[in-house]
Amino acid sequence: MSEKIYSVVEAEIKVRPDDIDMNNHVHYSKYLDYLLTARYEQMIKDYKMPMQEFIDRGLTWFAKSVTLNFKRALALGDVAVVKAQIKEIHGAVVKIDFWILKKGSDKIYVDGSGEFMLISLTNGRPQRIPQDVIEKYSI
Amino acid sequence: MSEKIYSVVEAEIKVRPDDIDMNNHVHYSKYLDYLLTARYEQMIKDYKMPMQEFIDRGLTWFAKSVTLNFKRALALGDVAVVKAQIKEIHGAVVKIDFWILKKGSDKIYVDGSGEFMLISLTNGRPQRIPQDVIEKYSI
Amino acid sequence: MSEKIYSVVEAEIKVRPDDIDMNNHVHYSKYLDYLLTARYEQMIKDYKMPMQEFIDRGLTWFAKSVTLNFKRALALGDVAVVKAQIKEIHGAVVKIDFWILKKGSDKIYVDGSGEFMLISLTNGRPQRIPQDVIEKYSI
Amino acid sequence: MSEKIYSVVEAEIKVRPDDIDMNNHVHYSKYLDYLLTARYEQMIKDYKMPMQEFIDRGLTWFAKSVTLNFKRALALGDVAVVKAQIKEIHGAVVKIDFWILKKGSDKIYVDGSGEFMLISLTNGRPQRIPQDVIEKYSI
Repeated sequence: MSEKIYSVVEAEIKVRPDDIDMNNHVHYSKYLDYLLTARYEQMIKDYKMPMQEFIDRGLTWFAKSVTLNFKRALALGDVAVVKAQIKEIHGAVVKIDFWILKKGSDKIYVDGSGEFMLISLTNGRPQRIPQDVIEKYSI
Repeated sequence: MSEKIYSVVEAEIKVRPDDIDMNNHVHYSKYLDYLLTARYEQMIKDYKMPMQEFIDRGLTWFAKSVTLNFKRALALGDVAVVKAQIKEIHGAVVKIDFWILKKGSDKIYVDGSGEFMLISLTNGRPQRIPQDVIEKYSI
Repeated sequence: MSEKIYSVVEAEIKVRPDDIDMNNHVHYSKYLDYLLTARYEQMIKDYKMPMQEFIDRGLTWFAKSVTLNFKRALALGDVAVVKAQIKEIHGAVVKIDFWILKKGSDKIYVDGSGEFMLISLTNGRPQRIPQDVIEKYSI
Repeated sequence: MSEKIYSVVEAEIKVRPDDIDMNNHVHYSKYLDYLLTARYEQMIKDYKMPMQEFIDRGLTWFAKSVTLNFKRALALGDVAVVKAQIKEIHGAVVKIDFWILKKGSDKIYVDGSGEFMLISLTNGRPQRIPQDVIEKYSI
C-alpha cells in the first residue's frame, strides 16, 4: 500500500441544459458523468496517458464503486470544477477522492470517493497496474 | 422504388424521471431515444431480426436524417406509444414515418420521419439492403 | 431510530439503447437513473403515495448520498430488476439499501445504499418525515 | 416575412464520455443537446438576452420542429462547433439553420434546421416575438 501523497488535479465542465432536471438543478446522476469527463481530461492533461493509450495496450478502466455526497446543487449557467486526488494505488485498483465545486465559489457542492479497476480487454479480468502507469500517476 | 404499403408497428416506453427537463416535460432530444428504443424492440418483435443479427452479418444501421414535429409534451407518469411505418426501402436506405402518442390518448404528441442507412461494419460504407431483410420488413 | 424490518419492494426497467456506452454496457451513471425510476414507481405501487402527492403538500425528496458497487454490467436486451429496502427512517432522512439484478438471473449486478431527505419546497430546508408517510412506508 | 440576412453565431461544446454510444460515436440524440447548449450560450454571448431574461418576462422558448442530417459522426476527444443562423422571424417563431462541425476541420458533421416558438408561461400559448427581442436577434 502506497503512502505517497498524490497531487490534486482538476478539470472544468460547463453545465448543459440537458443536465438540468425537473427540480431546475443538475440531475443527480450527471455528477458521475462530470467525474468521468474530468478523469478523461485529467488522463490527458495531468497523467499524460489518454484512455486511448490504455486501449492500445489492451487495457481499460471500469468503475468498481463510487460514493457521492450531495451538499448543494449546481444550476444552469454554472461551471463545475471537478478536483480529484489519488488516495491509493493497490493491485488493479486506483482509489480516488473527489470534490465538485462551482467555479468562482469555494463551497463544495458534491464530494465523494471512487475505486477504478484496470481491466484486460482480452479476458475482462483485473490487471495489476503497470509500474510505468503508477509513475505517470505519481505526480 | 417500392409501392408496397407496410404495416404500422408499435412499442411502448415508460417515461423515466431522467427524461424530464427544467420545463417539467420530456426533454426534446429524448424523443429520438424513444424512437430508437422502439425500433430496436420492433426489430425483435415485428421484423424478427434483432440488431445483433445484423451485427453478426457485419452490418449495422446508422441514422441518415430525422425530422421531428413537437405538438404536445409528454410528462412524468406517461407511457409513450411509438408507432412507425416503413414508407420506402431503396438501396441502402429505409425511410420511415413515426408518431409518438401518449398511452390512453389518441392525440399525437410528436411525429416525424427518418431515414436509416444500412452500413457495412467492415468498411463503413452503405450496403444495399439484402433481399431477405426486405422480406422480413415487408409485413 | 427504527428497528422495524421493512419490505423489499421492486420495479423493472428495460435497458434502452441510449443507456449503452462505448464499452457496450449500461453506462455507470444510468444505474442512478434506474434507482430513481424504481423509487418513483415504488412510491405509486408500494407506498401508495406518488411524488405528486408530496409536491402537493409542499414537499419533495432530494438525494443526500449514494453508494454504488458495480459487480457486473447490464447490456442491451436486459431488463433491470431494482430491489430496494428501507433500512431506517430518522428525522428528515430515509436510508435505503438497493440491489440491481438482471431479470431472469439471481446474480447482483449493482448494489448499494442511499439516503434521501425530505425537503420543504417553501424554504428548501429538511422537513421531518410526517407520521402518515412513515406509516405508508412501513410495509 | 423578414428578408434580413442574420449573422452566423457559434459556440463550442466538448464531447463528454456520456455522449458516446455503443458505436463509439456521439449518440444521435446528443446533437439536439449540443444545439440547445449552443443556443443558450448564443443567447448570452451574441443576442445579449439570456434565457433567464425571457423567463423573468413570463416567456420561454419551445422547439416546434427540427430536422437533422447526419453526415459524419463526432467522437470522444472532439470539440463540436455549432454554428447557427436565423433564417426568418415570423409571429411567435424563429426559424434557424444550423451546422455542427468538428473543431479544426471545415467538414460539416451534422446540419439541419429548426423552428423555435416563443411561449407565454402564464397560458402556454404562442406569443408574438416582441420588437426589442427582434432587434437583439437582428445582428
